[in-house]
Amino acid sequence: MKQLKISEAVVRRLPVYLQVLNELTMREVHTVSSQELGRKLNLNPAQIRKDLAYFGEFGRKGIGYDVDYLIEKIRQILNLDKTHYAALIGAGNLGHALCNYNSYIRDDVQITAVFDANPNKIGTTINGLTVQPMEALSEQIRSQGIRIGIITVPASEAQNVANELVSAGVDGILNFAPAILKVPDEVRIHHANFTTELLSLAYYIENERLERDE
Amino acid sequence: MKQLKISEAVVRRLPVYLQVLNELTMREVHTVSSQELGRKLNLNPAQIRKDLAYFGEFGRKGIGYDVDYLIEKIRQILNLDKTHYAALIGAGNLGHALCNYNSYIRDDVQITAVFDANPNKIGTTINGLTVQPMEALSEQIRSQGIRIGIITVPASEAQNVANELVSAGVDGILNFAPAILKVPDEVRIHHANFTTELLSLAYYIENERLERDE
Repeated sequence: MKQLKISEAVVRRLPVYLQVLNELTMREVHTVSSQELGRKLNLNPAQIRKDLAYFGEFGRKGIGYDVDYLIEKIRQILNLDKTHYAALIGAGNLGHALCNYNSYIRDDVQITAVFDANPNKIGTTINGLTVQPMEALSEQIRSQGIRIGIITVPASEAQNVANELVSAGVDGILNFAPAILKVPDEVRIHHANFTTELLSLAYYIENERLERDE
Repeated sequence: MKQLKISEAVVRRLPVYLQVLNELTMREVHTVSSQELGRKLNLNPAQIRKDLAYFGEFGRKGIGYDVDYLIEKIRQILNLDKTHYAALIGAGNLGHALCNYNSYIRDDVQITAVFDANPNKIGTTINGLTVQPMEALSEQIRSQGIRIGIITVPASEAQNVANELVSAGVDGILNFAPAILKVPDEVRIHHANFTTELLSLAYYIENERLERDE
């Protein structure tokens, strides 16, 4: 099936729309306007209409979007018709937090294996998963059909872990370590970087203050 | 001082450039080409040259960029001429991880106060900071000149915490809870969302597989 080319900014916004729409469904709200979505997301309604118009005209003027239909459509666009399995490497505080967080999305992306190099952590349990030694990584990734690796080890270890994940055949890596990692072109890597989040936030609040003070 | 308007995508890339440049300085590398930066960051060198050209011509053809000058320039653009203070609310696993992580950037953004509603956590210490009760939030934010709030509480508590941060007068919020929060227009909110990161990664790896299989 030929897929639409969607800009990276839209791909990043669609899961956020999905989250809001899922919250609406839980509250049994079945219709939503771009204005309401905009208010919830601090986004311009025109931006939302533009994003959603990528995929055909499925809002109705004056009535808004059918929430269930929009959820189905966005899930289709994001290829969320099956569960993606992920391995997490690094059973520290962040690893624990992500495994717990995982329950929010377990139908779409599910962490099914956790690894650590520290012998004291091996054999302990996080959210029902037993921490395994690094030596088991490659075999587990292959046998479980895991395609995503999540790196939550210290920066100094991150490149080695990325290399092992690549050798084991993952297609995507989500890196939380504060280090820029090199992977082959055919592996997709996203950096979930606390530092860059905080610095870009600092930029905006400072800039807005300077504008107010002009 | 009038600031340049920089696109959000560039504001998010600049701290990443900064991180790579800082790594180069530590290794005593003083010149870098857009090709080398591109390889390290998995970005197109043309994109990097375009981003940096925003701020004037400071690369030299055939030689590349002076690393120290580029660091200075990017820090200037990001308004990193002073330390921004932040409060973290939610002393769970994620809160612990972020406080530890904090040491990487403490000259630019520094977490100086940690709060939690759980009486068992109050009085414990994370990375040298004593966890304080929520009742102390407002006074601490004012007296310490804290302008950033970092939310690491469960989704169900996140909106209440955001409201308290807004009342206390913060200018920016970094929200890690898997919930969309409403804040007044004059407060900047960024959502650091594990779910959306994983779903957009899943989208790309699935899409690339579909393209290969065509």
